[in-house]
Amino acid sequence: MTQASQAPKSAIKLYQLVLANARSMSPFVWRVNYALAHKSLPVETVSLGFTEIASVCGGRFKTVPIIEDGATAVGDSWDIVDYLERTYPSRPLFATPGEYASARFFDAWFTTEVLRRMFGTCALNIHDSARPEDRAYFRSSREARLKTTLEAFVAERQARLPQLREALSPLRQHLARYPFIGGEAPNYADYIALGAFLWVASVCDVPLLAADDSLAPWLDRGFDLYGGIGRDARMKALMG
Amino acid sequence: MTQASQAPKSAIKLYQLVLANARSMSPFVWRVNYALAHKSLPVETVSLGFTEIASVCGGRFKTVPIIEDGATAVGDSWDIVDYLERTYPSRPLFATPGEYASARFFDAWFTTEVLRRMFGTCALNIHDSARPEDRAYFRSSREARLKTTLEAFVAERQARLPQLREALSPLRQHLARYPFIGGEAPNYADYIALGAFLWVASVCDVPLLAADDSLAPWLDRGFDLYGGIGRDARMKALMG
Repeated sequence: MTQASQAPKSAIKLYQLVLANARSMSPFVWRVNYALAHKSLPVETVSLGFTEIASVCGGRFKTVPIIEDGATAVGDSWDIVDYLERTYPSRPLFATPGEYASARFFDAWFTTEVLRRMFGTCALNIHDSARPEDRAYFRSSREARLKTTLEAFVAERQARLPQLREALSPLRQHLARYPFIGGEAPNYADYIALGAFLWVASVCDVPLLAADDSLAPWLDRGFDLYGGIGRDARMKALMG
Repeated sequence: MTQASQAPKSAIKLYQLVLANARSMSPFVWRVNYALAHKSLPVETVSLGFTEIASVCGGRFKTVPIIEDGATAVGDSWDIVDYLERTYPSRPLFATPGEYASARFFDAWFTTEVLRRMFGTCALNIHDSARPEDRAYFRSSREARLKTTLEAFVAERQARLPQLREALSPLRQHLARYPFIGGEAPNYADYIALGAFLWVASVCDVPLLAADDSLAPWLDRGFDLYGGIGRDARMKALMG
């Protein structure tokens, strides 16, 4: 085995999904973006609309994020993170196998209890904010999966908002004790959650959190990380 | 600072709560029991009924677990675990601060989404299984907190069972990937969850999980740990 190198030969290309206003809008791209920043790896972002994903890397990937690192292309956010940890082991995202397993559990919890409800709040907003040429594809692919129209899917979203806010309760308890989900320093669980809030902030026209939500200081700290890469997504859009 | 010693001078005394049938029934005692076993520390268990807790350690503690290690008495399961890690650092429960923080998050999630619902299922069973002399105290202290009778509190428990089973969904997803919550090896998150299932198994007359619940292999592995200290709590009691 050759020793893993500590820096890529040139910037890692990160394909991201954009809306009509060029704002980045995938929670999974955001977490990879944070992972690259955590590891201080150079990145070059390439913007795609929904219908352009199949046009890169020979159509191998159906979703973003995708990275290209020299001749290597990797899709799926966990596969990308695994690749980055293996190839560039310095500034690890996971110091131990136990930390890795706990981030996997966090992702299972967050996806089931929070991310799914976020999508139920802003699915139609995503459609309406997508590039005009992407809207028909977004609608037909999502409606086939949801087995209903986007309009019907989000119809009760105001009434369901308390469930979403309630689902964040374990996070509030934890962040009453620590500045970050990872403890004194942010870890990949922070990036998973911050990326999802950035996604919502980029499209949603309903304030996801109450104006006095105790998650606000953590969101502020998180959006400030790494030179404020999350800052442009306007915290204001999240809070009632 | 003196170097922490690696073994106690004599067995650590662990006060546990017991029912009329002498079965141990506190999820918080169980997690400490597992923590002591994980660290291979010698333990001597002392059984108490609810109304006897005030009679030990000069009445300093209102709840179990309590440990006595020589002249040092510690209550509260997290304080105990912190004490054990500090005093007996070998075989750590948490290899890194990140692992510790993630166990704290797991506890916040599990307590909010699962443990609370478990209590809503078996609160009256606990009363009925307690030592006769403990029942009036258990009823009055819990009813004051719940602001209703134990009977009213559990009246809808069958109808609420699907919510409890659904709340375990992130755990099922995680354990489809790993043998333990901690990954390849059990960690304190496993002990938190196993201890709660053992508590339920010791009292509950409703099967908490469906007979084909995919959590079963993990429960089996967990109850087998450390010479099967959890084994006597009868897995059968949990499964429909």
